[in-house]
Amino acid sequence: MREITVNLGDRSYPIRVGHGLLDSTQALAGLIAAPRVLVVTNSVVAPLYLPRVMQVLQSWAPESHIMPDGEQYKTLEVMNGIITRLLERGFGRDSCLIALGGGVVGDITGFAAATYQRGIQYVQVPTTLLAQVDSSVGGKTAVNHPLGKNMIGAFHQPAGVIADTSTLATLPRRELSAGMAEVIKYGLIADAEFFAWLEREMDALMKLAPEALEYAIETSCRIKARVVEIDERESGLRAILNLGHTVGHAIETALDYGEWLHGEAVAVGMLMAADLSCRGQGLDPEVPARLRALLQRAGLPVEAPSGIGQDRLRQLMNVDKKTRSGRLRLVLLRRLGEAIVTDDVDEHRLHESMGRFLPGSGRN
Amino acid sequence: MREITVNLGDRSYPIRVGHGLLDSTQALAGLIAAPRVLVVTNSVVAPLYLPRVMQVLQSWAPESHIMPDGEQYKTLEVMNGIITRLLERGFGRDSCLIALGGGVVGDITGFAAATYQRGIQYVQVPTTLLAQVDSSVGGKTAVNHPLGKNMIGAFHQPAGVIADTSTLATLPRRELSAGMAEVIKYGLIADAEFFAWLEREMDALMKLAPEALEYAIETSCRIKARVVEIDERESGLRAILNLGHTVGHAIETALDYGEWLHGEAVAVGMLMAADLSCRGQGLDPEVPARLRALLQRAGLPVEAPSGIGQDRLRQLMNVDKKTRSGRLRLVLLRRLGEAIVTDDVDEHRLHESMGRFLPGSGRN
Repeated sequence: MREITVNLGDRSYPIRVGHGLLDSTQALAGLIAAPRVLVVTNSVVAPLYLPRVMQVLQSWAPESHIMPDGEQYKTLEVMNGIITRLLERGFGRDSCLIALGGGVVGDITGFAAATYQRGIQYVQVPTTLLAQVDSSVGGKTAVNHPLGKNMIGAFHQPAGVIADTSTLATLPRRELSAGMAEVIKYGLIADAEFFAWLEREMDALMKLAPEALEYAIETSCRIKARVVEIDERESGLRAILNLGHTVGHAIETALDYGEWLHGEAVAVGMLMAADLSCRGQGLDPEVPARLRALLQRAGLPVEAPSGIGQDRLRQLMNVDKKTRSGRLRLVLLRRLGEAIVTDDVDEHRLHESMGRFLPGSGRN
Repeated sequence: MREITVNLGDRSYPIRVGHGLLDSTQALAGLIAAPRVLVVTNSVVAPLYLPRVMQVLQSWAPESHIMPDGEQYKTLEVMNGIITRLLERGFGRDSCLIALGGGVVGDITGFAAATYQRGIQYVQVPTTLLAQVDSSVGGKTAVNHPLGKNMIGAFHQPAGVIADTSTLATLPRRELSAGMAEVIKYGLIADAEFFAWLEREMDALMKLAPEALEYAIETSCRIKARVVEIDERESGLRAILNLGHTVGHAIETALDYGEWLHGEAVAVGMLMAADLSCRGQGLDPEVPARLRALLQRAGLPVEAPSGIGQDRLRQLMNVDKKTRSGRLRLVLLRRLGEAIVTDDVDEHRLHESMGRFLPGSGRN
């Protein structure tokens, strides 16, 4: 078991990464400082892993709440369903939620924990690669609004994160790829050596080689933890974690959060950001080329889905939490391993870069 | 203008109390550190005070959002309506909400500010006595759930509180009385001299004598600020502010938040708590007698509404945020001006005290 600590004073917590941690009472139980536990999961994860978690937590006599599977259920209404369950079953403030599942379960359960009686404890038990390297770490919780992703939420740190790499064996390949987009992102924004390591090890990772997987998840979590420690509430540096996300969210919104996975949309967004970085930030043009190759090896798309017009995409980018005084702010790359946040975005260049990654642009 | 500071490190903020502050650019404008402003109010307050606030804020070109009036609208759905407005109008994270109205507007607007894009600034401009002395101070925000009051919320401190005492002239008498219940509470839990002052000045207060009103609001806010400074997130001391609220909330829930005002329910709850305190905490029996007389002079009820059975009331008391491990915790009085929180509650004595304040108990 590898352990990384997220150092946030009295809100510090461990991230534990390892094969088979789901069955380890030691890994999970020590994190829970509450007499009552509700495990929240979804209808796909429940048959796979819920019985094991209930078993490990048996001394709490845990209860469970199963929500439907899918990003379209990351809503205020479904969050309210968790609250209703807590109230119906008489859970008090001294209760702990366990978020067992992917990013949707983690974000919505975290938001329920942030707001139930103005805040209770929760533990993240991510079962997708995306959740293990990204959404379960850092305390961002949220639900979607029809007009924008993650628009209603809170910063609420978990009491701990348990990432069992063995759960990735049941993950659909497409979701494995989507998670890999975020792993690649960490190399791009903060660690050129890690990016090079990923270029060497991508085939092993896609075959779920345990050692490579643990190293990739640990390194990703370590980079994210260091960024969150410096800027817990995203007043500055933390925004670099959103490389590719402004375009990514716009794509997801245009598709109504249905067809494309978050990581797939982010992959295209990162490519656009890298391309734009070559036009204004002096990024070596070799970087987008290397990125494109790596994304393809990870099974990720390298152009936007058809049917979204360029103007529509540009318009949707304005509904972004990084926006300040109506000005678009983007994460760009100065060089491989170094990101910046800027509102100095040339619209002409932006449209050029967007055009290169829309279908039928003749780029390929 | 009287000013009290709530000292909470980088979340510190001023409470400004005075006659006519609504028209003072100086009082309000200095608090806003955001380029865009949305004023949230309700359909009753809007015609009375919204134009003046929009005028004072004109350099921001403020927008407004009017919600329906009433506790029954303090819901997740109505909160979501504020979020929708913000998104439709393209408000970013650097926006400020102004909560212009009573406790419902303040609580729901504060919760929208706490959760919109994971947190934006807001300013409280309370226009009821209850909001001026209680709900606008301390950063508790929430909406109701059908199974319990304030069950979904967050701690999110405002950037400031502007209490214009002149707005109380348009307040219905019943709401003035309801706010007075909380003023009386501060004397009971923390300041015997203030309680005695209230006994002398209650008639002047009910006639809205400006000097008396300012002093009562300032003193109430000062007591609340000191408690919040010690225990911002209600892990201990802050619970004493809930004297009378466990029973009060139970009454409100039983009546479906419709017929009785919060302060009216709290008045009866405080009487029950004082009576129970004489049975177990050694409180001088003169205190409930003085309290009863003072509540009556403030136009407040001194027994529970008819039609709520004692067992139903007791059961509803269990859904209380103070509950720990299923044990009821109550705020009781050791003496006038000193409150404690205890889970050492004798059920027999509790039922005796409850019985004395239910209609038809033959106490009167």
